[in-house]
Amino acid sequence: MKKYNIGVMGATGAVGQEMIKVLGEREFPVGELRCLASERSEGKVLSTPFGDVKVARTCETAFDGLDIVLGASENDIAEAMAPHIKAAGAVFVDNSSAFRLDPEVPLVVPEINPEDVEWNSGIISNPNCTTIISLVAINAINRLSEIEGIYASSYQATSGAGAAGPKEMYDQSAAILKAREEGGKGNSYGADIDPKVFQYQIAYNVIPQIGGFGENLYSSEEMKLQNEGRKIMHQPELRVSCTCVRVPVERSHAVSINVITKERLSLDDVRKAVSEAPGARLYDEPDEKIYPMPLLTSNQDIVFVGRIRRDLVNDNGINLWCCGDQVRKGAATNAVQIAELLIK
Amino acid sequence: MKKYNIGVMGATGAVGQEMIKVLGEREFPVGELRCLASERSEGKVLSTPFGDVKVARTCETAFDGLDIVLGASENDIAEAMAPHIKAAGAVFVDNSSAFRLDPEVPLVVPEINPEDVEWNSGIISNPNCTTIISLVAINAINRLSEIEGIYASSYQATSGAGAAGPKEMYDQSAAILKAREEGGKGNSYGADIDPKVFQYQIAYNVIPQIGGFGENLYSSEEMKLQNEGRKIMHQPELRVSCTCVRVPVERSHAVSINVITKERLSLDDVRKAVSEAPGARLYDEPDEKIYPMPLLTSNQDIVFVGRIRRDLVNDNGINLWCCGDQVRKGAATNAVQIAELLIK
Repeated sequence: MKKYNIGVMGATGAVGQEMIKVLGEREFPVGELRCLASERSEGKVLSTPFGDVKVARTCETAFDGLDIVLGASENDIAEAMAPHIKAAGAVFVDNSSAFRLDPEVPLVVPEINPEDVEWNSGIISNPNCTTIISLVAINAINRLSEIEGIYASSYQATSGAGAAGPKEMYDQSAAILKAREEGGKGNSYGADIDPKVFQYQIAYNVIPQIGGFGENLYSSEEMKLQNEGRKIMHQPELRVSCTCVRVPVERSHAVSINVITKERLSLDDVRKAVSEAPGARLYDEPDEKIYPMPLLTSNQDIVFVGRIRRDLVNDNGINLWCCGDQVRKGAATNAVQIAELLIK
Repeated sequence: MKKYNIGVMGATGAVGQEMIKVLGEREFPVGELRCLASERSEGKVLSTPFGDVKVARTCETAFDGLDIVLGASENDIAEAMAPHIKAAGAVFVDNSSAFRLDPEVPLVVPEINPEDVEWNSGIISNPNCTTIISLVAINAINRLSEIEGIYASSYQATSGAGAAGPKEMYDQSAAILKAREEGGKGNSYGADIDPKVFQYQIAYNVIPQIGGFGENLYSSEEMKLQNEGRKIMHQPELRVSCTCVRVPVERSHAVSINVITKERLSLDDVRKAVSEAPGARLYDEPDEKIYPMPLLTSNQDIVFVGRIRRDLVNDNGINLWCCGDQVRKGAATNAVQIAELLIK
């Protein structure tokens, strides 16, 4: 079996670490695994499913001999390194948002538009986490009848901000529980909270801001579902109104979604389509307390879909609730699946 | 100044306690304060703004001499006691859902339909907490142009389930933090979690169920915004599609809302209307990180409204985010405001 030399850029971060784990779990035919990170991590030894690997520094000459580079770095690094990855002859599967809307770059969810991998010219973008999770759930409906509009409100886990996110949440929790036990009063029981990763205290709070705000007053995160959804589903007229909210959960994003379709669909048809959709699991017996929750969907790759019911505002609408692990299917697993398409 | 004899039924619970506090804060002209509760609490002495009060047992003969009874009991007790409260000549301001949709009973948010107090025949219902908070925010828009449809996804605090809710959340948090510190692995770090108040672990999780599910697969809580909203705003055709979700927050519900109006409104007009709406505060400078959060809106009576922007799906839609203390404005304060209307 042919083997491939794989680079992971941003290898020490939450998504990079998960990419390496997923490569192992899915038995990707890895020849060399090259772990790249910032100068700070250079020389550190990572234990991986492919043996111990010493971290090299991300730089212009770091990509020679690689077939595929999985990127888990910020936009500036992705932009700076992309020409050098291409020059080295590797394909760059990038999890940053730098190239997602570039018309020269395919944006791929393998369950939805695998064919778009073919027209890549050296870069393929991995979509936003909430976008991937939402689209895996609703693309099944889109195949029954074209979706014209989507209302979405998200409940996004702290690990979406990297490994420092859950740490900040748990540290704040501990401080508040201690202050509460000591009889503290008022907001946060008087605990001294100094948010660094998030805009405000995230423990026992919710924050309606992820990313910066644009001219239309939507946050960057909120526009991704519309902009990326249009490109992935090849529907340039798709309209999405989204509200993205950070909640005090470690892992797995949940999304409350209303989709409005061209034709009126039966709930039975929607349930059947979801149950047959690749990457999705129908998890919908509300009377038995069977519905998706972050607690159930962490550390696995399937998007759970439940609470399917008629939209009470629009006769052509369907209301649902989905939940998936944003570090895995929302980032690392989706990137490795793209790499699998590349070597097929 | 005339004084009134006030009974509080369910006086030892979270809402009953808050009612007593709010009566004091608002300097309600209380003659006698009679605290009623179940047999379990009989004889217990409560410290109140009106002096120490010994708890009496809720029973058929408990209401003699009272002018107004504020009810913070479950539906069965409200239903059983209502005839006896009326027979004693008192007006029953009931926070349970027992009479809310009864055509003989007004359902009142004083900022919206104070005039409905007048046609009461002994019972006035206090609406659902999420309904009150959402309507205080959006009734201002309704006055500019009739609202035809509402999409809402809620982020509801644990104290909505009574005082035992936050306790369960904090206890679970403590167990999980301990297990995490001890190096526990997997779901909840291996902590032993035994949910009693909520369906599942609520710490570091979100649960898309509040109340039981009906035939249309909406939960009882989710239908309240439509059913009660129609009655409060006198709009029997109002359509609402709601998803209610419990989140690990101690106090204050948040709601992500899209309203669709008959005419297209300008954002400036919406902002002006919200800023002038009684009971609401425009809190909307996203670039300055000014938006409503549970952390900011607990232990006070105003509904904060922010993230106001155009709906990207419907040209006649407005998207917003609001947050209010569901124990106060969502329950106790609203009931005391109704009592104030009664004695005016």
